[in-house]
Amino acid sequence: MRTMSEEDFIQKLAGLFPGSRDVTVGIGDDAAALDLGLPGGMLLLAAADQVISRIHFTADTSPVLAAEKLFKRNLSDIAAMGGVPTHALVTVAMNPFEEKALTEFHQGLSNISNLYGVPVIGGDLSSLPEPGLTASLTIFGKAEKEKLCLRCNAAPGDCIYVTGSFGNSFRSGRHLSFPPRLHEARFVAGTYTSAMIDVSDGLAKDIARMAEASGLSARLEPDAVPRSPGASLEQALCDGEDYELVFAVSPSQAEELEKLWPFPGVRLTRIGEFRPGPAGEIRGVSLPADKGYDHFHGKND
Amino acid sequence: MRTMSEEDFIQKLAGLFPGSRDVTVGIGDDAAALDLGLPGGMLLLAAADQVISRIHFTADTSPVLAAEKLFKRNLSDIAAMGGVPTHALVTVAMNPFEEKALTEFHQGLSNISNLYGVPVIGGDLSSLPEPGLTASLTIFGKAEKEKLCLRCNAAPGDCIYVTGSFGNSFRSGRHLSFPPRLHEARFVAGTYTSAMIDVSDGLAKDIARMAEASGLSARLEPDAVPRSPGASLEQALCDGEDYELVFAVSPSQAEELEKLWPFPGVRLTRIGEFRPGPAGEIRGVSLPADKGYDHFHGKND
Repeated sequence: MRTMSEEDFIQKLAGLFPGSRDVTVGIGDDAAALDLGLPGGMLLLAAADQVISRIHFTADTSPVLAAEKLFKRNLSDIAAMGGVPTHALVTVAMNPFEEKALTEFHQGLSNISNLYGVPVIGGDLSSLPEPGLTASLTIFGKAEKEKLCLRCNAAPGDCIYVTGSFGNSFRSGRHLSFPPRLHEARFVAGTYTSAMIDVSDGLAKDIARMAEASGLSARLEPDAVPRSPGASLEQALCDGEDYELVFAVSPSQAEELEKLWPFPGVRLTRIGEFRPGPAGEIRGVSLPADKGYDHFHGKND
Repeated sequence: MRTMSEEDFIQKLAGLFPGSRDVTVGIGDDAAALDLGLPGGMLLLAAADQVISRIHFTADTSPVLAAEKLFKRNLSDIAAMGGVPTHALVTVAMNPFEEKALTEFHQGLSNISNLYGVPVIGGDLSSLPEPGLTASLTIFGKAEKEKLCLRCNAAPGDCIYVTGSFGNSFRSGRHLSFPPRLHEARFVAGTYTSAMIDVSDGLAKDIARMAEASGLSARLEPDAVPRSPGASLEQALCDGEDYELVFAVSPSQAEELEKLWPFPGVRLTRIGEFRPGPAGEIRGVSLPADKGYDHFHGKND
């Protein structure tokens, strides 16, 4: 697909389906949010993501790690909404369809399920016509309305904060070993931010999405961008698959956030700010025209 | 996988994940049921199913029909629980990754979404490393606790009723064109039955699953089994992909059900009865030892 961006296509998709009064957030954010009348005014969150061999992991990656990555990608989406994950459903298809590989895949699911207390409640198993593995996971979560974090909620002047560091995730194996930032997200959601995204497609690209959704531009300070070991600035900005958080914080709360940040093992860095339009533009760093991990174009195989 | 049946493996899976008090029905039925405190004591239903080219449809099937099948398979699962479908999330991966095929796939989703009033609220798009299409859909629904239909609820002496006819579904194209039996299921759920399943893997196999879960055997009347055009008895019993309903009705209600059945275009047939054990045994018909569509063994490619 060369004639339309992923964002444009997803925008077009949203118009294909009927509206529903209980959909607070639909297609286009890290997760959907449904207002089903849950106790305490909680919203039900739901997101779905997939992993495919030779796209999201190499052919020699163990089914255990593939399953763990799949589960954690989805946990990261719930984190980015400011929510708490609750349940998951998983479909998997593989070839060869063997008990050993299926058991390993489900061991990976079990590892993450037990670590985060998120039961898998259903799914489906199938064979594939050719060697490989594809799997899809739908995650449910809950969030208080007042803690919900959306891409569109950044305000002009907000500081741009990130957790962790960026770049080189595929080569370093970080794309498999990362911890989803659930605790960090809950610490800031509703208290320090209402605008958050997780970085799957590349730091610059995902900040541009936040900026676009909020009708703002973003100015980045290149020297401030935390780089993972071995990563250049361009890699830090464009590689993707970091699964760190980006969130917007009012300047009046920035000092307090930095002082009270309770996660000594997780770097918190201010890398720039949101400014009035043009919407979606990134300033302060030079970006290659067509860079940024793009699942839609399947560039990272 | 030749050493373990799909049922055994799924039973094993259920033990890998933490329990949760809000999971009323977990792995092993047509859908999971969650008790989240929804208004009116409604349960939230959730099921996930997938379609894969050259497994669930031929390589020349249009993306429109593949998407419609995917959506309807999941609607059928909600029907079999006695529920009403509410929302869906969809992940799709294809190669070539082209706007035309993606648009056709989403047109298929849109057709079913609008026909049944079930919005798609999220998902993911990816490329595949080799030509083909894989897609997974998670469906949500709602059901009153007292209408919930489970495989394990059949009682000794219950009549076995089916909707529609069976066999030859793949060759006739019925596996693509079938209507999910949502209205029929809601008519009987809670009023005439609390034990229901939809037929995806083969009539005999799915009745055996109900019988097994209920600790009963089933006696079928071979002459009563409604066959689709061109289907032999063996095909009607074993082919699968019919997406009709099987449900258990107390003999005291059978006459009333047949008299009041309000769907003149949908055949309702009593094909046998559940009896005391041995659990899972099918009597009255001779079945080939290894027949029955089995997604787990990927037999129908």
